[in-house]
Amino acid sequence: MQKIDILIENGFVLNFEDNSEIPEPKSIAIQNGKILEIGFPNDLKIKYNPEILLSANSKIVMPGFINAHTHVAMSYFKGLADDLPLMEWLTKHIWPAENKFLSKDFVRDAALHGCAEMIKNGITIFNDMYFFGDQTAQSAQKAGIRAVLGEGVLDAPVANYQNANEIFSYIEKMNEKYKDNELIDFAVAPHAIYTCGKENLIKSKELAQKLGILLHIHLSETRQEVENCIKQNGMRPVEYLDSIGFFESHVVIAHGIWLNENEQKILADKKASIAINTSSNLKLASGFDSFKSYLDHGVNLSIGTDGVASNNNLSIIEEMSITSKLQKALNNDPTILHARKMVEIATLGGAKALNKENEIGSLEPGKKADVILIETDSIEAQPIYNVYSQLVYSLSSEQIKDVIVAGKVVMKDRKLVNIDEEELIDKAKYYQKKIVEFNSNR
Amino acid sequence: MQKIDILIENGFVLNFEDNSEIPEPKSIAIQNGKILEIGFPNDLKIKYNPEILLSANSKIVMPGFINAHTHVAMSYFKGLADDLPLMEWLTKHIWPAENKFLSKDFVRDAALHGCAEMIKNGITIFNDMYFFGDQTAQSAQKAGIRAVLGEGVLDAPVANYQNANEIFSYIEKMNEKYKDNELIDFAVAPHAIYTCGKENLIKSKELAQKLGILLHIHLSETRQEVENCIKQNGMRPVEYLDSIGFFESHVVIAHGIWLNENEQKILADKKASIAINTSSNLKLASGFDSFKSYLDHGVNLSIGTDGVASNNNLSIIEEMSITSKLQKALNNDPTILHARKMVEIATLGGAKALNKENEIGSLEPGKKADVILIETDSIEAQPIYNVYSQLVYSLSSEQIKDVIVAGKVVMKDRKLVNIDEEELIDKAKYYQKKIVEFNSNR
Repeated sequence: MQKIDILIENGFVLNFEDNSEIPEPKSIAIQNGKILEIGFPNDLKIKYNPEILLSANSKIVMPGFINAHTHVAMSYFKGLADDLPLMEWLTKHIWPAENKFLSKDFVRDAALHGCAEMIKNGITIFNDMYFFGDQTAQSAQKAGIRAVLGEGVLDAPVANYQNANEIFSYIEKMNEKYKDNELIDFAVAPHAIYTCGKENLIKSKELAQKLGILLHIHLSETRQEVENCIKQNGMRPVEYLDSIGFFESHVVIAHGIWLNENEQKILADKKASIAINTSSNLKLASGFDSFKSYLDHGVNLSIGTDGVASNNNLSIIEEMSITSKLQKALNNDPTILHARKMVEIATLGGAKALNKENEIGSLEPGKKADVILIETDSIEAQPIYNVYSQLVYSLSSEQIKDVIVAGKVVMKDRKLVNIDEEELIDKAKYYQKKIVEFNSNR
Repeated sequence: MQKIDILIENGFVLNFEDNSEIPEPKSIAIQNGKILEIGFPNDLKIKYNPEILLSANSKIVMPGFINAHTHVAMSYFKGLADDLPLMEWLTKHIWPAENKFLSKDFVRDAALHGCAEMIKNGITIFNDMYFFGDQTAQSAQKAGIRAVLGEGVLDAPVANYQNANEIFSYIEKMNEKYKDNELIDFAVAPHAIYTCGKENLIKSKELAQKLGILLHIHLSETRQEVENCIKQNGMRPVEYLDSIGFFESHVVIAHGIWLNENEQKILADKKASIAINTSSNLKLASGFDSFKSYLDHGVNLSIGTDGVASNNNLSIIEEMSITSKLQKALNNDPTILHARKMVEIATLGGAKALNKENEIGSLEPGKKADVILIETDSIEAQPIYNVYSQLVYSLSSEQIKDVIVAGKVVMKDRKLVNIDEEELIDKAKYYQKKIVEFNSNR
C-alpha cells in the first residue's frame, strides 16, 4: 500500500465530462498537494494508506469555488451605510473610512476575517484588488487559502503611495518575494479607466506582461462609465483598452456588463475573462445586462462576489443562484445558464480567468488538491435528482463542511482549522466601535 | 415573581417604530402563547420566573418570517427537471409526477418535510395552496408551525375531486374541523384565472366571504396570462377579478407582476395583498417588473417562496435579498426597498396579507408569540452597523437558531424539536427512488 496524505472516500465527485445527474461514488487520493488518483472506492481503498481519511459518504466532492473578483480587506465595512445612492455611499462613507483606517494592520486583520468567511463559503482561491497586498498575503497564508493579490493602481495618491510608480515597484518586489509560494501570486490591478489614465494603464499592462502575471481591472460597471469613455476616447471601454494593447496581457475584467458585440468579440479573441458580480451590480443599482451573447461569442465567464460591503456576503453559491435566475428572466429563457454551467463557471471558468486552468478548477490527477466537500444528507438537500441543480438552487454554504487547499485541510466539519472565529469576532467588534466612533465625530 | 412559560433575555429585539440601527438589548416575557411584556432585561429578570429561559445574548429577536405563498407538499419535486422551458417542465415532469403520486400519504409526508425546512428558515406561518389540506394540517401541527391551507380550486377534475363543488364542501368541512385550532386556518384557493372560470371564481369568493377566510390566487404571473385575459375578457387580470367582485373578500395574490397603475390602485383600494415570489419569477423566466409604483400606491406587499420546485429552497432571507437587489437595479435606485422595509414586508406585510396583523407580524404585548432568534456572533454577521442590513444582505438561514410558534419552542439551537430530520431524509430518499423509477418507465 502506498502512503498518501489524504484519501477522500466515497463521494459524489463532480466531473464536468460526466453527464450523469448524480455521479457514482468515487474516491480521491491526494499526495503532496496534488490529486494523485480518482477512482472506485474499493480500488483506492486497497491501494492507498492515507495519513488522513475523509469520509465523503453522501457528500458532493468538487473543486473549490473560485472567487474571481473581490476586495477581501473591506470586511469591516460590511453593512456600513447600505441602501444609499452610490456616490453618497462611496464619498461620504466608504472613502472616508478607508482614508482613516487603511493601514497594514487594518488590512491584515480585515483580510484574515475575509479569508475565514471565504473558506466557510467553499472558496479555495480569490482574486483580490486592494492595497498592502503583502498583509493580505500573510493572512491568506495563515488561513491556508490561495490568493491572487492585485495591488490597486491609480493615478492619484492612494494608501501609502505617492504615485503609481511606487505601486509598480511594490508589485515587482512582492512578485519576487512570493515567486515560489504555493498559495500566493501577485497581480497588477489598475483600478478602472476613470481612475487610471492611459499612461498608467499601459504601464500596468507592460508590468503584467514582463512579470507574466494577471492584469485585473474594473470595467464597464455602469452606463455612466461607458458614456464617459465614449465621450473622452471616442470608443467603448473594451475597445479603448484594446486600442492601447491592454489585452496583450492576461486580463480579468470585473463586472463587464454593458459590453456590445464588438467588445465581446475582442474579449473572446484576446482570451480575456469576465468576473460576473451580480449581487453587487444589483445592490448598487449599477444595472444588469444579458450574458447570452457573451456565451455565444465564447467569452470566458467567472464569478466574483465583489467586496463584502456591496454584496454583503461572500457566498459563491448565492452568486451562482442569483446570476442564473436573473439571466433566465432577462433572456426569457429558463434553460440558459443552467445549474451545471453555473458550477463550471464558478470553478473552471474562474481557473481560466486566473490563467490557472492547468492547475485548478477541476478535479483531475495532476491538478492541485483544492477540494470541497458538501453535505447532501440534510433536508435542504434531499431529495436529489441532479447534484448541480441542488448546488445552485437549493443548497447554501451551511452545507459546505470540509475544505482542502493545496492538499491541506483548512476547514473540517465546518470548523476552520487555522483560525479562531471567536478572535475574529472580537476583532470585528473592536473595529466596529472605532469606525462608529469615527463616523459620529465627523 | 410571576410564573411564565418563556423568558427571552437580552436580545436585539426588532421593533419597526424604533429607528436605531442596533436595538438596545431587551427581554421578552411569553405566557400562554402570547407576548406578555417587552422591556429592559433587569426589569423583566426580577419580575418573571420562567419555565424556559432563552438567552438571546448577541441574537436578533424578531417576529417569525411569514411565507405568504407556497406549495409545501411539493418537497419531493425539489430539483426535478430544472432548467427546462416552463411548459415542458410542467406538462412533462411536474404534472405527470403529481398525477401519479398525489395522495393523502404523499402530501402528509412531503408537507412534513416542507414544514421542517420552513422552520429551519425561520418561518412561523405559511400560506399554502395545494390539495389534501387536512394532511398538510396534520403535518404542520406535528411540526408546530402555523399554516393557512388553501385548498386549490380548478374547473377540471384534480386530485381526488370530480368537480369544484366537492372542493368547496371539503373547505367548509375543514374550516369547521379546525375552527378552534390555534395553528391551522383554511382558505379558498382558486388556482388561477386560466384554470378557474368565472363561475368558480365567484363561488370561491362567496365561500371565502361566508366563512370569513382568506382567498388566495395566482395572478398576473406571466405576460401571456395578461395577454390572454385581455383577449378573453377585454380587461387586465386585476380588473377582471374586480369586475366580478372578487376583492370583496380578503385576497392574497401570488406573483402579481405586470400590474398597471389602475390595477395597483384597485388592489390598494380593496386592501388586497401581493405575495412577491422573486426567485420563482426569475427561475421560471416568468419575468420581473418594478414594484416601486405598487409601493407608491400603497399596495400591501409580502414575501412568498413559491413551491420548492421553483426556487429551490424556502429561505425568506434569500427572497428578501434577491427582491431588494433586483428592485434596486430595475429602478436604478439603490435606496429602494431598503433592508428595513424588506424585513417589514417579510413579517408585518405577510401578517397583513393573511389578515392577521392584529395577531402576528410584529413583537408587541398581546400579540402571538411567534418569535425567531438569529445569531450575530458569527464572522458572517460581524461587524454590525445595522441589524436590518445584516439580516437582508449578509446573513443566511444558517444563523437562525431558535424558533418559537404560539409560545412553544419548535427549534432550539438549530435542531428541530418535534421532528427527526434523519427520518425525513430517509423518507425523501424513498420517494426519490419511486419518482426516478416512475420517470424511467415512462
